[in-house]
Amino acid sequence: MWLRAGCEIQFDESEPAPFILMLRPRSGRRQWVARESYTLIPSVPVEEYTDPYGNLCQRLISPPGKFVIRTSADVLADDTIDVAPGAPFVEVQNLPNEVLTYLLPSRYCESDQFIQMGREIVGDAIPGYDQVARIEQWIRDQFIYNEAAPHFQLSAADFNQMSEGVCRDFAHLGIALCRGLCIPARMVVGYLHKLEPMDFHAWFEAYVGGRWYTFDPTQSEPRGGRVTVAYGRDAADVAIFSQFGPALYPTRMSVQVEQLPGPPE
Amino acid sequence: MWLRAGCEIQFDESEPAPFILMLRPRSGRRQWVARESYTLIPSVPVEEYTDPYGNLCQRLISPPGKFVIRTSADVLADDTIDVAPGAPFVEVQNLPNEVLTYLLPSRYCESDQFIQMGREIVGDAIPGYDQVARIEQWIRDQFIYNEAAPHFQLSAADFNQMSEGVCRDFAHLGIALCRGLCIPARMVVGYLHKLEPMDFHAWFEAYVGGRWYTFDPTQSEPRGGRVTVAYGRDAADVAIFSQFGPALYPTRMSVQVEQLPGPPE
Amino acid sequence: MWLRAGCEIQFDESEPAPFILMLRPRSGRRQWVARESYTLIPSVPVEEYTDPYGNLCQRLISPPGKFVIRTSADVLADDTIDVAPGAPFVEVQNLPNEVLTYLLPSRYCESDQFIQMGREIVGDAIPGYDQVARIEQWIRDQFIYNEAAPHFQLSAADFNQMSEGVCRDFAHLGIALCRGLCIPARMVVGYLHKLEPMDFHAWFEAYVGGRWYTFDPTQSEPRGGRVTVAYGRDAADVAIFSQFGPALYPTRMSVQVEQLPGPPE
Amino acid sequence: MWLRAGCEIQFDESEPAPFILMLRPRSGRRQWVARESYTLIPSVPVEEYTDPYGNLCQRLISPPGKFVIRTSADVLADDTIDVAPGAPFVEVQNLPNEVLTYLLPSRYCESDQFIQMGREIVGDAIPGYDQVARIEQWIRDQFIYNEAAPHFQLSAADFNQMSEGVCRDFAHLGIALCRGLCIPARMVVGYLHKLEPMDFHAWFEAYVGGRWYTFDPTQSEPRGGRVTVAYGRDAADVAIFSQFGPALYPTRMSVQVEQLPGPPE
Repeated sequence: MWLRAGCEIQFDESEPAPFILMLRPRSGRRQWVARESYTLIPSVPVEEYTDPYGNLCQRLISPPGKFVIRTSADVLADDTIDVAPGAPFVEVQNLPNEVLTYLLPSRYCESDQFIQMGREIVGDAIPGYDQVARIEQWIRDQFIYNEAAPHFQLSAADFNQMSEGVCRDFAHLGIALCRGLCIPARMVVGYLHKLEPMDFHAWFEAYVGGRWYTFDPTQSEPRGGRVTVAYGRDAADVAIFSQFGPALYPTRMSVQVEQLPGPPE
Repeated sequence: MWLRAGCEIQFDESEPAPFILMLRPRSGRRQWVARESYTLIPSVPVEEYTDPYGNLCQRLISPPGKFVIRTSADVLADDTIDVAPGAPFVEVQNLPNEVLTYLLPSRYCESDQFIQMGREIVGDAIPGYDQVARIEQWIRDQFIYNEAAPHFQLSAADFNQMSEGVCRDFAHLGIALCRGLCIPARMVVGYLHKLEPMDFHAWFEAYVGGRWYTFDPTQSEPRGGRVTVAYGRDAADVAIFSQFGPALYPTRMSVQVEQLPGPPE
Repeated sequence: MWLRAGCEIQFDESEPAPFILMLRPRSGRRQWVARESYTLIPSVPVEEYTDPYGNLCQRLISPPGKFVIRTSADVLADDTIDVAPGAPFVEVQNLPNEVLTYLLPSRYCESDQFIQMGREIVGDAIPGYDQVARIEQWIRDQFIYNEAAPHFQLSAADFNQMSEGVCRDFAHLGIALCRGLCIPARMVVGYLHKLEPMDFHAWFEAYVGGRWYTFDPTQSEPRGGRVTVAYGRDAADVAIFSQFGPALYPTRMSVQVEQLPGPPE
Repeated sequence: MWLRAGCEIQFDESEPAPFILMLRPRSGRRQWVARESYTLIPSVPVEEYTDPYGNLCQRLISPPGKFVIRTSADVLADDTIDVAPGAPFVEVQNLPNEVLTYLLPSRYCESDQFIQMGREIVGDAIPGYDQVARIEQWIRDQFIYNEAAPHFQLSAADFNQMSEGVCRDFAHLGIALCRGLCIPARMVVGYLHKLEPMDFHAWFEAYVGGRWYTFDPTQSEPRGGRVTVAYGRDAADVAIFSQFGPALYPTRMSVQVEQLPGPPE
């Protein structure tokens, strides 16, 4: 499926401020970016680097006054996501080295506090994919997905006390529960075609059966049409924009994802 | 200063268990390992890899029954640590890319919650080294350093409610306060010559004036004689040993650091 | 200077063939890609990865029949290149670790054979930038730059027997001579605004005075307007396209670089 | 098999000279270093870093006068090397990204010049392991292995004109022939138990059947007891010591490898 995904973010500050943005999807094994644009109005100097997770980060100093960031990418994305009931748990000693970091607790995923709870949720599910599927379903059943929920920076433990939350809360809880069962799990931020209401989105991936699988407890069924922008341990690693100093809020922000009839010419 | 630093850790479990250990100091820019041994009794297969922070990690499956891990390294370490009053704050836009990850909040350092508190502590100190020195002194003044304190896995926010703590608590709080001021800070675990009582130790480094400086709020004055074993964002990244599954506790553990008269022959 | 740089390459083979392409300029410290497209006609699956030098590589299997690869990028490039007479030689012991690999001989730059010759060319020039400038000028004086020269895969030693050559030959010789003097040097491929005749271009960078400087012996004076596509030790690392098996030749190939009036909207 | 492998190298120069050494075997997937020492007499400052191939490199400035480097490591090495007749050729499009660099020609392995010759040597062998085995045998048959052969820095093409050579020549030719057939191949330097006469040794690995296999055309049959010190594209990447400036020669050099009865205590 060819998707055109992008955003427009507008700031209006009186003082220049340093920013790190993660708004550039990159081509990789499962997605191909055929066309892309990244516009800054006014144009300011930008420097791009790759973070430890392989994400492309853009560093810049926002100018005072109205500042618009506009991105658009034409991406070949999978139509559907792979679903693999029965895919087995991989014992820690057999995990690839580079996956091990996704077993550790992180800022918003206190997996060390979710061991017992995870076991209860998965019950007698076959270790591996089926356990993650139960966790995903349990989150769906227990929490109301509401992008209008007040979204402070909740951790999985904080969110577990609530009854409704945003996509990142759902992902954090899923990740914390997986890691508590020794299943590597990582956060993904990006775009989802036909997301309602349209916005940036967050979901998670779990490593079972020798590869990463996509899980999204905010959606009632497995859905493709995803454009990945960044991977990380949790939201601390994959902020769409990080500022330093007093928090700045966009004065406007919009996200678009539309399907293209075919590859861009 | 030439130091011989090492440990002996003993487990006695009925079941084999996967482990990841970080017990091998590596040579680098500021320390040179001239002799080293890493013994496993009984001998079991080990695989070593480098984690994203550059630390050497040893993967193995512990055998059932008594299992001893014994390490020893002869290391050329700095006699003193550099102290640099006045070393300036580096603005975010001028930080090297690889340092930026140490500005983000992490599992045990919820720096996003310490912004206001950090500002109050540093007061009118010159931005940079002097701010970190004030933070370090404030921690010394406010908390009792007691390695016998019950050490659950406290985060900086948890510890901030307590009156006494262990070295990792002191380091976490220092890190969280620095990051809240946009000063990159990272955790170090290793050995400290003449530590009382002798044990593994944790301290932190802050990036000011264009390089990393060592801070250790558990000690009343700047001290050298440090052997670094691992760097990370916080204790989640630099566990001396990580197990997966039910927590295992060493049946014995001892740490030794002694000064050598000169380089090993 | 905003440049629009791109190419169109056409193959027409009866058999599918695996390819690795390096045709995607990436944003970095000195160039910013604001818009980009990479079209394959017909559309085939592509996988992108980063090579050890940080270059973006595209892997694909070319389809049988006519196959067109078309790229275009809008890039903010430096108007001029920095020129730094007097910038000093950096002694080997003071070079950054990551630069050391560019001191070693490589496939097309047998620097171990150019030590004596390099010394004679630089004569009494101040060690550092001035030595590289003399090497650059010497190559200009000795060889005729002729893109129509038969360009087999000549090494620096091969080319040194000739009287005329293409851009990659000029770069290889410059690199070999620099390395022979213990000056790190690397090959760059990319686009040069107003190159005559327009084509892909190759030049080199030398590390003196604590940073990389651009040198291009094919041009009579320092010129900006460069878009970097890839860095490497020599042409073996930075082939615009690598095939495996019998050599395939494009049936058509064209390169365009034009200046834009300002940033793309 | 537990081996104690090490060397002693002595220089005696009137001027200080910068050096890069690769003398420290590292633990990894297939070898475990249980004890190690690296002595410099007199003791001078050293800095260690990891090169792009993952090898540990030691940087130092040799002092004027007698300078001795002495290393020793107790390593658990495989008793035998895996032999896998029939292991299939991996098509380029299926090779892991990180292996692709070992298909390219390099300083001493002009694989682009060996395509036709490689095909003739392997004849009708099954593509993959069996082809490499034929190459290995062909080198054994054609060339006399003589460590006393004058060993200038020959490339594979140079060596192909000779009748006898040293281990690095044999490895270079094997690598060049493999790459010419699109089989990734890399150079290994290290120690070989019972090598006659004892010295540092070089061999090569080829990637077939989804992993690296060891080949050593200098030996009449497959032999284990190998301690790897460094991997690279060819000898340019894996010099035991690199100097910069006029070549320095050790005044003495000796290598020892002995089998230990068991793991070091």
